[in-house]
Amino acid sequence: MTNFTKISFDLTAGRTEFHNALKLTGCEVSFNNFPADAAVPFVHSHKQNEEFYVVLKGDGEIYIDGEIVKLSAGDAFKVAPQGKRCLKAGPTGMSVICVQSKEQSLDAFTADDANILQDVKSPWQK
Amino acid sequence: MTNFTKISFDLTAGRTEFHNALKLTGCEVSFNNFPADAAVPFVHSHKQNEEFYVVLKGDGEIYIDGEIVKLSAGDAFKVAPQGKRCLKAGPTGMSVICVQSKEQSLDAFTADDANILQDVKSPWQK
Repeated sequence: MTNFTKISFDLTAGRTEFHNALKLTGCEVSFNNFPADAAVPFVHSHKQNEEFYVVLKGDGEIYIDGEIVKLSAGDAFKVAPQGKRCLKAGPTGMSVICVQSKEQSLDAFTADDANILQDVKSPWQK
Repeated sequence: MTNFTKISFDLTAGRTEFHNALKLTGCEVSFNNFPADAAVPFVHSHKQNEEFYVVLKGDGEIYIDGEIVKLSAGDAFKVAPQGKRCLKAGPTGMSVICVQSKEQSLDAFTADDANILQDVKSPWQK
């Protein structure tokens, strides 16, 4: 199965990074469980990469370009490369997935990038 | 805050897509809650995009290039563009995040793409 690579990881681990483990070539993804009140100890920006985040559990805050925005489970957000950012978890911790991808790199997606295969059926297709 | 865009969504919705809502430019991300035993009704591949998935809850199976692989919470996997794929949830349903990004588009990531800002401190930095 040259087109498929899988790993299993601990959903409760502090941080899991997937790029190297799966040999991703279009993005880096990390799964992060921040302990209660934990803050990233620095502010950072990016050179080329846009970041996309989903908050899966808990709540917290993001410092972004001098402002603070509250975050909670069910929030999804984008930070442009030059955004100066820092994350902090609230008192119950915060679980977030972060995707780094190169800004302006996506040409098409979903229906525009997919080939629906008429000649291949899955075992579950009627 | 020109460098920051946020939405709130329903973590229990069937499918939430983020590209258009957040004006993502480097990837498309979707959050998918498959009902028990639900299967995608077609097999598809992609033209340019690699897909990365994380299984957050439940279990299921993926049909990939003629084979079937079992999936469960804590699995993460990559499918190359040409992979012929179809997902099916198990009896308790399955929640997955899917990231589409253009194959070979990422130049650098994390430490190699980040600028750690010495002259900007977050409100939480000592």
